[in-house]
This record gives sequence, structure tokens and C-alpha cells, in this order.
Amino acid sequence: MLTVYAPCLNHRLTPQIKDASLAMLCDSGTMNGSATFLAEAQALLGPRGVTLDGELMAPWLTDWRGRYTGRALALASPASTEELSALVRLCALHRVPIVPQGGNSGMSGGATPDASGQAILLSLRRMNAIRAVDADARQATCEAGVVLQTLHEAAGNQGLRFPLTLGGKGSATVGGLISTNAGGTQVLRHGSMRALVLGLEAVLADGSVFSALTPLKKDNRGFDLKQLLIGSEGTLGIVTAATLRLIPAVAGRSVIWAGVPSLQTARALLLHCEDIAGNALEGFEILPGDCLGTVLDYLPGARPPLAGRHEWHALIEVVADAADAELLGERAEALLAAALERGLVEDATIAASEAQAEAFWLLRESISAAERARGPAMQHDISVPIERMPDFVDTAKARIEEDWPGTEAIAYGHLGDGNVHLHVLAPPGSERAAWEAGDGKAISRQVHELVTAWGGSISAEHGIGQLKVDELARLADPVQLAMMRAVKRALDPAGLLNPGKLVTLAPPEGTA
Amino acid sequence: MLTVYAPCLNHRLTPQIKDASLAMLCDSGTMNGSATFLAEAQALLGPRGVTLDGELMAPWLTDWRGRYTGRALALASPASTEELSALVRLCALHRVPIVPQGGNSGMSGGATPDASGQAILLSLRRMNAIRAVDADARQATCEAGVVLQTLHEAAGNQGLRFPLTLGGKGSATVGGLISTNAGGTQVLRHGSMRALVLGLEAVLADGSVFSALTPLKKDNRGFDLKQLLIGSEGTLGIVTAATLRLIPAVAGRSVIWAGVPSLQTARALLLHCEDIAGNALEGFEILPGDCLGTVLDYLPGARPPLAGRHEWHALIEVVADAADAELLGERAEALLAAALERGLVEDATIAASEAQAEAFWLLRESISAAERARGPAMQHDISVPIERMPDFVDTAKARIEEDWPGTEAIAYGHLGDGNVHLHVLAPPGSERAAWEAGDGKAISRQVHELVTAWGGSISAEHGIGQLKVDELARLADPVQLAMMRAVKRALDPAGLLNPGKLVTLAPPEGTA
Repeated sequence: MLTVYAPCLNHRLTPQIKDASLAMLCDSGTMNGSATFLAEAQALLGPRGVTLDGELMAPWLTDWRGRYTGRALALASPASTEELSALVRLCALHRVPIVPQGGNSGMSGGATPDASGQAILLSLRRMNAIRAVDADARQATCEAGVVLQTLHEAAGNQGLRFPLTLGGKGSATVGGLISTNAGGTQVLRHGSMRALVLGLEAVLADGSVFSALTPLKKDNRGFDLKQLLIGSEGTLGIVTAATLRLIPAVAGRSVIWAGVPSLQTARALLLHCEDIAGNALEGFEILPGDCLGTVLDYLPGARPPLAGRHEWHALIEVVADAADAELLGERAEALLAAALERGLVEDATIAASEAQAEAFWLLRESISAAERARGPAMQHDISVPIERMPDFVDTAKARIEEDWPGTEAIAYGHLGDGNVHLHVLAPPGSERAAWEAGDGKAISRQVHELVTAWGGSISAEHGIGQLKVDELARLADPVQLAMMRAVKRALDPAGLLNPGKLVTLAPPEGTA
Repeated sequence: MLTVYAPCLNHRLTPQIKDASLAMLCDSGTMNGSATFLAEAQALLGPRGVTLDGELMAPWLTDWRGRYTGRALALASPASTEELSALVRLCALHRVPIVPQGGNSGMSGGATPDASGQAILLSLRRMNAIRAVDADARQATCEAGVVLQTLHEAAGNQGLRFPLTLGGKGSATVGGLISTNAGGTQVLRHGSMRALVLGLEAVLADGSVFSALTPLKKDNRGFDLKQLLIGSEGTLGIVTAATLRLIPAVAGRSVIWAGVPSLQTARALLLHCEDIAGNALEGFEILPGDCLGTVLDYLPGARPPLAGRHEWHALIEVVADAADAELLGERAEALLAAALERGLVEDATIAASEAQAEAFWLLRESISAAERARGPAMQHDISVPIERMPDFVDTAKARIEEDWPGTEAIAYGHLGDGNVHLHVLAPPGSERAAWEAGDGKAISRQVHELVTAWGGSISAEHGIGQLKVDELARLADPVQLAMMRAVKRALDPAGLLNPGKLVTLAPPEGTA
């Protein structure tokens, strides 16, 4: 039987009901469906576990980029998987939607509730224990609320590392990273979050616990449910813990900044680096020459790595473990010498110190903020097959700038993964809100259509959330969309898990 | 709405109706539901595409190990994805179950129909084109019927290789390997089939085509439907083509045979090899001393690699690409010298030639046949967390041999993957059929219970098929089983795709 999400709460408790204790609600005769639910939730989770305080809730009701603001019935913060399981059962009973949230650092509004105020906002941040770090087996078992930076430190203390990092590492949580299959700058060698999860625990829509934390390298007992949950943005289950892969700490790195004449040459340089450095190649990022200028203007005291001007720049990182560390410098020089000889780079430099290596990476990491400071813009996190990326970027930039006079399109990012961030800047003097809602939106639609026509993805690493839910419904392969909806209906028939995100259920058959 | 598989064909055409043309069926007045279906199927696929000839069907109606024999309405062999799509739509219309089959070399009866004769046997073997090998992008796009050996050769011709191999490589097909998430002896470094599929095409239960052959390294547009289909044993969709990962050809290998005193030491040796050889470690197989004796007795002219007797043996393969090939011998010797110094091996030898390397591997590959030649036995393809494997094997062997006097339990295989094949030999003089159906079955149940208690899998690489479908239903985590059933119902509501395999649907609510 299909049951589509149908709100059944008539009474809406809003953040404005500040400090309204449940006792007061009961005394004043307002006890009804929501109040019963909230009283039962508070009984389950205790006073720290459920809050109706608008001030406490407010920071979590707007996404960090300020694009979405929602309302919630309450903020629930369970302390354990058992508490969460009981809470979800209660939500299922009362048909209360649940919006899970980790560090609230997502890029697509996937953790922000809608404006109805009918859902509970579910914080996993209290569940923040690192249950174990097993240096011998090279794995760590973490609860969902563990912050990425904390995991990095715990692994580092054992001479190991967790090979995924991104700008929001100080707030992003393990649960959020898994639910969104997060990427970053080390995907080239180590894969995205999907590749690093060895075991998983999650609470499903009926409150049952999917429990598969024990890693098995080989297990052919049926469907890959773990991978189905990873990247499902909380719409199929709520990640509560995971066993993650660790690898030996890096003993040294060589960071190269190279100037190249075209993206096609950058791609040839990437293949050259893959052939010579193999698994030691850990990063390959690209940025256009103009974009470097923008970053240099934006960052106080920043200096250009190379003397001359180049159409494109590549930032390359090669790493070594303890056994190979002493050969690293020599190898990086040989790699670069061969690239110069083959005409793959116009000029290049190797960071002479760790400080300089960090300065190079700071240039890369500041692109987003520097470009945003120039004015209103639409950003697109897209991928196409790696070998087609150079031609795609050239084509898309020309098409957008021609069709929308005054705009400027800039592509930068993870060329090694076939994933760039395509930033389209509004014509000078555009008014932000009007441009974003008008031309900006039309430009995004055009970018997404182009990407789709080139066999690519409208979301390479940032997910769908609420930002791209309509675009996914518009542009996804109808067969795949139907499969996703069927799976969503099967595992969350009442539509209570993160409604309105990723995939929305079509109306049931027989209705309009 | 849930619809559980309900056969609606009253008339059963069996293999015995040899050469019965549909015209004859029509003329003789026997045209009914099945005949209509068959006439329409033949119109869609042409005479080569549908056969009712019992002799042509017979070889494919029994699995290669001779454990299962079924019957089929017809053997359908579509020539293209389009033909298969139309056929599946027709099957959905007529409610005809479909049993997909690749090379018929599976280990669990997953490609053999049941005895009812109501299903069509679907051969993918005519769809055997290698559509493209892209040496630059290191990938090959193959149709489902491509034989593994053929893929190996096509990759080899381009200086590349497909890094998955197994005993049945001369008959196993790409589609079957994907549907069963096949393993083999190279999983340690390269992962099982799941890790090697970059893009996938499959026909779903309603005949629609899941089309995702174009590889994208990063794609966060929702649920991982590709991984959901891989390893689903044809119960969620029928794999028709895939884009597979290729890697550079191996320029050299060093094969080591080592004698070790215990499995615990073998595990320490494995860690030692991983630390020193890193990604160059491509195989780590173990076999007990007695088992080597059995193989030497079985293989004419075979010689023991080492002079003395050892409780356990490890077969280790270290590989090198072109850049490292010349250092390979030196590195293998250093690895072994350090292992001897640390007391991790009692004795060891490095194959002096490629012929000797192959002779070492032949010993490993002959275990299964040699053990089977000793008499009736139950085999178990199991995994537990790698670090627990040594203690598990010791415990399970002692328990089984104590509880079932006269039996002998032998574990061998992929220690590096936490996956061994546990072979339990019947007491001397046991009558095969009676022992297998009686004590043998009880022993298997006990082995599966032990594995489950140790956090392991009752099927590490051979899949569930029909062989373990009852054991999975008995021992799987009920939450995961319920999820699998929900997903199966969602994607194949009529239960027509490979019924009776992997996961069977519970009776619908409200019925007995």
C-alpha cells in the first residue's frame, strides 16, 4: 500500500512559542496531537533531548549560506541510537516528519526544514563519540555527530589519517558527510565518502535499526543496502554511526603550481601525472588565470606562485608514505621536468616549504569566497566524463556568455574527478535578488541542460537537497527517477524522512 | 499496491515438446496463454531468439555442479537490449517469470529455473559484443554475454588488464559476474566486481531500460541504483551491458610460497606484506599442510614447494608495473628476509620462473577438486572480519570435528579478504546422498550459525541463489531482510525476476 506524505498536524507550534513548557500547554488546555507527541518525545529523550526554545533552535533553522530558512515543531537531540529509534517510532505513530541535521554545513539546503513548522529538526550532534580507533585494522567507529576535524585528529594521534577533507571540516559531521556522500579535494586518490565507509548503522523510517557496523571485506548476502543508505540525504534512513577506513599518515608531500595554455593541456598533464606518480597523485585542481587574479585581489598579502600570466593553472599534490618520503622531492622534480619537456606546462614551481604548500592551497580554497565577493552569481557543482571536461568547459563558458551578455563564467576545481564548479557572475550592477530569481535561475537551467546533454551530472558532490530537487525531477532519466521513487516509497511509505529533499513522491495513482 | 508472484499459466510447455512449432500448436487447437506468449516472443526475437527444443535447452537447465535441474517454458536469447526490453514487457503482460543466465558457472544455483516449467530461461550469451575499449580512459564497455577470458584478451591487446579472475573464466560472463558480484583471487588489491563497474545498463521488471553506461567519477544525484543492481542476482533487473575499469598490465610478478606455524602467524605475515609491499600485494592465499598433501596426491607430477612439513602454507603474489619491474625481485627478497627475521615464516621460496609461479598457483587452484575427490563434503564460502579469521577457523574446525565424529574440516582461500572456503569432509564410507541430506545439511546449518555469531557472512563471494535462500531467511538480520523484501517488492512487484532466488517475498499482509 502506498501512503504519500500527508500532514495530519493541525496545530502548529512555532519557534515563537518560546519557553512554553509542556506543562503550561497542558494546563492551558491546548494539549492536542502535537502536544501529546511533544510530551511523549520529552519523556523519551529528557529535557536536554527536546527543546521548543526558539532562540536555541534559530541557528539551525537557516542553512549556513543563508539561502533557506524553515520552521520546526521542536529541536530533538537524542543521545543514543536507542533514543533515536524510540523517537522515530513515535514520529511514525504521530506522522511527524523528521529533518536530520549534522553540522548544518551542507550546500543544498538538505538539512533545513520547510516553512510549515510541522517537522521536528533532528540534531545528531549529541551523538559524538568516537567509539574506537583500531590502528591494526586501520578503521575507526564513530557516531554520526563526530566532527570531521575531530576524526582527523583522532586518526593522526595513531599515525593514521582519514583521507577526506573539505572546507567545512570544523563543523561537518560524519553523519552528514555520509548522508550526502561528501567529496572534497582528495577524491582523486581515495574516492568520496562512499568509498570510505566500511560499516554503517542507521535508524529506518519505522524506528528499526539497520545495524552493519562490523566491516566485512566480502559479503554477498544480497542487495547493497549500505550503499543505498549512503548519499540518500536522510530520505531512506538516519545515519547514526559508521566504521570508517583509515590509511597510513602521509610522511611528506610535494605541491606543484603549474601554468598551462589550455584545459586540454591540463588534462594531458593530469594523465602524465597519473602515469608517472600513480597512486601518489593525491590532488589535481585547476583554475583559470583571471580567477587567480580575483583571488590575489581578495586575499591580503597573497602572492602569485608564478611570474607570468597563464590561461590556466594546475595545482598538483603528490604524497609519499614513510618508505618513499626521501625520494619524494626527486620524483616531483622528475615528473615536472618530463612535463616541461613534453610541452605540457609553460612554467611551474614546487613549493619550497610546507608553509608555501599551504599558501598554494589557500589560493585554491579562497576561490569560492573571492568570486562571491565580486557580486551576485550562480554556482554549479557539475561533472561530466573526465575526458570530455575540457571541451565542455570551453563550450559552456562561450554559450553562457554569448546568451547572457555581461555575465562571466568561471570554471575551477577537481579536473581529476571530472568535476568543476561553474560560477556564473551577474552583469555588473545587477541587483542580487532580482537577478538570482530571474536571469540567474534561467542560466542555471541552461547549465543543467547542457550538462545533461553531455552525459554529466547536475550534482557532482553537493547533493540535491531542496536546492536542486525540481531540476532533478525535470532532467533526471525518467527510469532512474521512477526507481528512486519506488525505493523511497518502499522504505518510507509515509514520507516522513526529510520530506521535500532529493526525491519527492509523485501523487499516488488515480489522483491528480 | 503489492502483487506477489502468482503463476497464471495453466498450460505447461515442457522441454519434451521438442520441435513443436507454434504453427502446429495453433493448428492443433492448443493455442492458449503460453502459446500466445511464445508466438509473440518468437515474433519479437525471431527463430534464433526463442527455442522450445529440449535438446538445445537441456545443457542450460542443470547447473554446472549438477546440484540443480529445472524446467523452462522456452529458452530465450535476445540479440540486443531493445529485444530484451520488448521481451520483458511481454513477460510482464503474460506474467511469465524470467530466469537470467550467463555462463551457467555460478556456485549457488542462481541461474537454474525451478521445476515448474513456467519460467523462460533467458540466455544473455548472444549479446557478446565488446562495444569499446578506451585505452586512454582505461575502460571497456561490454555486453552482458562477453566471456571473462575474452575481456582479458581484449584488455591485454591494449597493454591493459581487467583485474578480476576466477576458475570459470572461460565460461563466466560479464553479466553473470556483475549480477553475482563475483570475487576471485585478486580481490585483495582490486576489490570484487562491485568495485570494477563504472557504468551499467540493465532491463528492469517492467521492460524499461536503466541506462547509466557513461562513467562519472562523481555523481550525487540520489540513490546509488547502480550498486543496488550489482550483486542482486537478477532479482531486481537484468544486466545487459557495463563499462568496466581497466588498469595497466602487470610487467612482472613475484610469487612466494611460505610455510607458517599457525593461522595467527599467517595473519601477522599478511600485515607484514601489506606494510612493506602496499598496493603491490595482489594475492594472499592460505592452505593447511594436510590439504597440500591432498593436492599433491591428486595432481600427477606435482611437487611440494618446500622440503619440510608446515601446519599452514601461504601463497603470496607481489606485482609490479613497468616503472618498478626491475626492482621487483629485490623487493620480494627483502620482504621475505624481514619476515624470516621476524619469525613470521618457517621456510619460504620465491618462484624462480613464470612456469614455477604457475605451478604454485596450480596447487592453490586444485584444492577444491582435490578435496572433492576424497568423498562427500559440504563446502562453505564464508567471511568474518579479517582480524578474527584465524581464531574463527581454529574454533570452527574443532567444534565441527568434535560434534560430528569422523568428519574433517579444512579451511583454505583468501585470508587477505577475511574469506575462506570451509570444506567439511564426510566420515569415511558415508553414502553421498544420504549424508548430504542428513548430517551434511545439519553441519552447514551449524557452520552458518557460527559464522553469524562471529559477525560474518554465510556467503562471502558465491552469492545466495537457491542454495542459501532458506539459510539467509533463517539467519539474516530481520531488519535487513525486511529492507531487501521491501526493495524487491518495489522494483519487481509481480515477482517475475528470478523468483525463488536470493530473497523470497513474504506472503502479503492479511494472508496466511
